Amino acid sequence: MSGRLTVVGLGPGAAEFTTPAVADVLRAATDLVGYETYLARVPGAGTSQRRHASGNRVEVERARHALELAAQGRNVVVVSSGDPGVFAMASAVFEAIETGEAHWRDLDIRVEPGITAMLAAAAAIGAPLGGDFCAISLSDNLKSWSLIERRLEAAARGDFVIALYNPASRARPHQLGEAFSLLRKLRPAETIVVFARAAGTRQAQHHITTLADAHTVDADMRTLVLIGASTTRLVQRGPGVPWVYTPRSERPAE
Amino acid sequence: MSGRLTVVGLGPGAAEFTTPAVADVLRAATDLVGYETYLARVPGAGTSQRRHASGNRVEVERARHALELAAQGRNVVVVSSGDPGVFAMASAVFEAIETGEAHWRDLDIRVEPGITAMLAAAAAIGAPLGGDFCAISLSDNLKSWSLIERRLEAAARGDFVIALYNPASRARPHQLGEAFSLLRKLRPAETIVVFARAAGTRQAQHHITTLADAHTVDADMRTLVLIGASTTRLVQRGPGVPWVYTPRSERPAE
Repeated sequence: MSGRLTVVGLGPGAAEFTTPAVADVLRAATDLVGYETYLARVPGAGTSQRRHASGNRVEVERARHALELAAQGRNVVVVSSGDPGVFAMASAVFEAIETGEAHWRDLDIRVEPGITAMLAAAAAIGAPLGGDFCAISLSDNLKSWSLIERRLEAAARGDFVIALYNPASRARPHQLGEAFSLLRKLRPAETIVVFARAAGTRQAQHHITTLADAHTVDADMRTLVLIGASTTRLVQRGPGVPWVYTPRSERPAE
Repeated sequence: MSGRLTVVGLGPGAAEFTTPAVADVLRAATDLVGYETYLARVPGAGTSQRRHASGNRVEVERARHALELAAQGRNVVVVSSGDPGVFAMASAVFEAIETGEAHWRDLDIRVEPGITAMLAAAAAIGAPLGGDFCAISLSDNLKSWSLIERRLEAAARGDFVIALYNPASRARPHQLGEAFSLLRKLRPAETIVVFARAAGTRQAQHHITTLADAHTVDADMRTLVLIGASTTRLVQRGPGVPWVYTPRSERPAE
């Protein structure tokens, strides 16, 4: 079977974060499949390149459509923001393969990595992920809130830096507040919290606060929330907001 | 003060994973500072570009040297592999600033993100990071083994996918075995384990096994070890090794 499907990540927003490997795959595609907002970020397609835009909430349907196109011999690219394997389309594609047509398993399926929001947000404010860290999606569309609570508690007990993806949406306005309440019982009030909005884009905004003072209104669908470990600290700089970093060692040099 | 210091990540190996943003910064640099193996990956420097190569184990000294050069008005780039903020040079730079000369805080300090090994390894085998995940460095050069054990236990109790960076070196041959022993008490024997060696390079190798059968001899300094969550699974494909993925949902579709 000659069809090909590649799941790519564009990175967080600015074109300068899209890897040459992804740019090459996009140029060679006959069909681009993805959420309309992400497809709009792919530069000028040739007239023969077909674009299949869809809404944000139909991941497995979108994956099945992409697999059907590939099975017709097309060179299909499924477009994600950030990294396709981090809370994005790559898992949906393998889920569709697992439950779909047997011949889809003979297709040439590839995944091309990208800069995920957590890395872009971290780079913009310093090095908050410098120690051990974890990434948790707060969306309970596909998993139970009790599992999310169990993971927040484990991350807090392990003193990990925590990156919260999908912290809030119109359909889920209260979960970030519940997450902060849970973390306040397990982590010191002065724990550093960063709200990174539209990380890796020209509209990027960063708000540094503490766990005690963190307000959920500072988060929306485009926000990543970083919660520091016990060693995460600020370094004051001459001009501008301080840097945030987590030392590699357990106790930073005095 | 006109000096500039940018900490960049080249990505995991192949040049096609280095972002255009990092390539631009490298071209504009007057001075490149880094571990000699990573500097060797930076393409042909202009004759006026100075290279300052050092050994692998002198991160804070290297960071101080880079800051001194920037304070002389140079345009300095500190070169990391992968992402500079993930177990790499960015933290060392901020640690050097925190403990160093006051005027270093007036320098123009930036971090440019890169594809970290975990993302490249995941993309090469499917989508193992599709759920919540954490990253732990097994090196106890800078933190205690008891803290590492505490984090492994927390990650296991939270049913995270776990990416183990720096799983073994000649100086630390036994720690990965101790980590597997600890995880075997908390995770099922059939938990999927992947050894990804030289991820994101032309020499990349992937070995898929289970927690029961994982052998530490399969890991060295260039290996990333991925330990699946309870939902992480294989999808058999026609030709070749199976894909590994973690569904976005708690229980994948039957």
